[in-house]
Amino acid sequence: MKLHRLNEKQLIRAIREEFRGPHPGLALGIGDDAAVIKTRGANFVITKDLLIEDVHFILRHHPPWLLGRKSLNVNMSDLAAMGAFPKYALLGLGLPKRSETKWVREFFTGFKSAAKEFGVSLIGGDITRAQKVTISVTLLGEGKNIVRRGGAKLEDQLFVSGPLGEAREGLLLLKKGIRLGKNRQQNRMLRAFLDPKPRIKLGRELSRLNLASAMIDISDGLSVDLAHMCEESDCGAEVYLDKLPVSPELKALQRRAYDFALNGGEDYQLLFSVSDTKLAALSKLNNEFGLYKIGRIIEQKGIFVVDRPGRRKKLHPNPWHHF
Amino acid sequence: MKLHRLNEKQLIRAIREEFRGPHPGLALGIGDDAAVIKTRGANFVITKDLLIEDVHFILRHHPPWLLGRKSLNVNMSDLAAMGAFPKYALLGLGLPKRSETKWVREFFTGFKSAAKEFGVSLIGGDITRAQKVTISVTLLGEGKNIVRRGGAKLEDQLFVSGPLGEAREGLLLLKKGIRLGKNRQQNRMLRAFLDPKPRIKLGRELSRLNLASAMIDISDGLSVDLAHMCEESDCGAEVYLDKLPVSPELKALQRRAYDFALNGGEDYQLLFSVSDTKLAALSKLNNEFGLYKIGRIIEQKGIFVVDRPGRRKKLHPNPWHHF
Repeated sequence: MKLHRLNEKQLIRAIREEFRGPHPGLALGIGDDAAVIKTRGANFVITKDLLIEDVHFILRHHPPWLLGRKSLNVNMSDLAAMGAFPKYALLGLGLPKRSETKWVREFFTGFKSAAKEFGVSLIGGDITRAQKVTISVTLLGEGKNIVRRGGAKLEDQLFVSGPLGEAREGLLLLKKGIRLGKNRQQNRMLRAFLDPKPRIKLGRELSRLNLASAMIDISDGLSVDLAHMCEESDCGAEVYLDKLPVSPELKALQRRAYDFALNGGEDYQLLFSVSDTKLAALSKLNNEFGLYKIGRIIEQKGIFVVDRPGRRKKLHPNPWHHF
Repeated sequence: MKLHRLNEKQLIRAIREEFRGPHPGLALGIGDDAAVIKTRGANFVITKDLLIEDVHFILRHHPPWLLGRKSLNVNMSDLAAMGAFPKYALLGLGLPKRSETKWVREFFTGFKSAAKEFGVSLIGGDITRAQKVTISVTLLGEGKNIVRRGGAKLEDQLFVSGPLGEAREGLLLLKKGIRLGKNRQQNRMLRAFLDPKPRIKLGRELSRLNLASAMIDISDGLSVDLAHMCEESDCGAEVYLDKLPVSPELKALQRRAYDFALNGGEDYQLLFSVSDTKLAALSKLNNEFGLYKIGRIIEQKGIFVVDRPGRRKKLHPNPWHHF
């Protein structure tokens, strides 16, 4: 069934049913002019992302339920990078006339599965006509010890929370027409792009234990997001090329694996800085989360890459445009 | 200058500068992964709207600064209808390559002027490429005595807060190529569509004095929004045709003035129900706000229009699609 047969009211009713509570702290959810949250003196942390067809995703690449998950999860990743945990989501959805209700249903199933994983309630939003599928998520969370981008200090060590460059390889495979299937290596890359995992638990632990001096999620690529952190912290950074977490799978598939790790976007790993005095405490998280020390904060402005023989090269932030 | 010459970072820096504080209650604003609000045990009220070029507005019709104002003000209107007052806004903006920085600047000037009128702080958002200008606003406010849609009671009187049907006439004029100019009557209609005024103060007063049993803002048209209120309140309503606030200016310009008042959208007036016991208290607000009694709540489901000779006709909600 095409969407113009299903009116907005029916759709909202279905969504309201699908996302029914109980939602602790929520005084009023979907269905009125606005949602109401009862607060209890905490910090509310809010983020918002706009995802647009043919700019951020290609419909025929992205199974709708994975797109539903990703729409919420990229916002989750922003909260993870603040050391906050997510609680309430609002979804604005612009849908072309050509949209199939089956697609919309699967999108919501995915959105819901991601919400459920972290106990997030969908509390409101807006559905409207659009020329391209337009997804606008607002995510609210709570946090006590907020970790900002601008707190990195001289000689802090730099860590990332997992393999880099795989989402970019995944996108490359999609563009070549390769889809999720039987090839384990390819599936890993495709999943990195189609279904990234926000590092909520790690972000919370780092915040709770006060271990990270600065933190950001890697959405635009290490070179870009590390530059953001350094700018806000008024410092520079050195990255050790051979310490970058580049998986054997990525190396097997892609000659430019290290370039992808430095400049590929959408990995949604956390990048954070840690003072030497806290390395012992951090090492206790290593078993659960698998952390990679990739460099350190230096005084000289700019980002520098150091290779095994010790050669040092300035890295220019290289923002990644998908399509 | 075309927008692709101005990168997102520069643009965000300019916006950050433009919307600099102080912002009471805000712990962290634009520039990190998320914004942080310190709460004090109040109700947070949240709404979100998506406005898309050629669906909700036509670029050549809408001066950018008025579009900036309207983007925020339609969300203000949702909070007004809850009896809440607005505090923090997040703006997601999708911009085509063809966008001129002059346009973007003027849009933000308008957004800021609307924000300033009600003391709203812009605390975050997202700027991205899009095929069509895509505006996604999230607005947070606070409210004590929240007024819902579903509280209307049998025999309550129905009120609206100002003239109806003018925004639709304004849009009609725009489509005919008529712009803001010297004609006072036409300007009034054009302004109703291009620069609607959210009834924040009235909404707050009704909430503070506990006068309205139910409230909604008229964005889709009286027939549609009254039907929403009645459905949520499990009742019906009668509307007296000759009591509808239809201005002499609209009557002079438009033969179908009463049809426009019933079915035209985007007036952003408040529609609310009041119990007989509170009419005396309500009348004290009449001087400041200009309220119009247009009907009453009845037991029989459905919306009925009663004309001067007392003929009663069922009104079918007639949602309004702009373009």
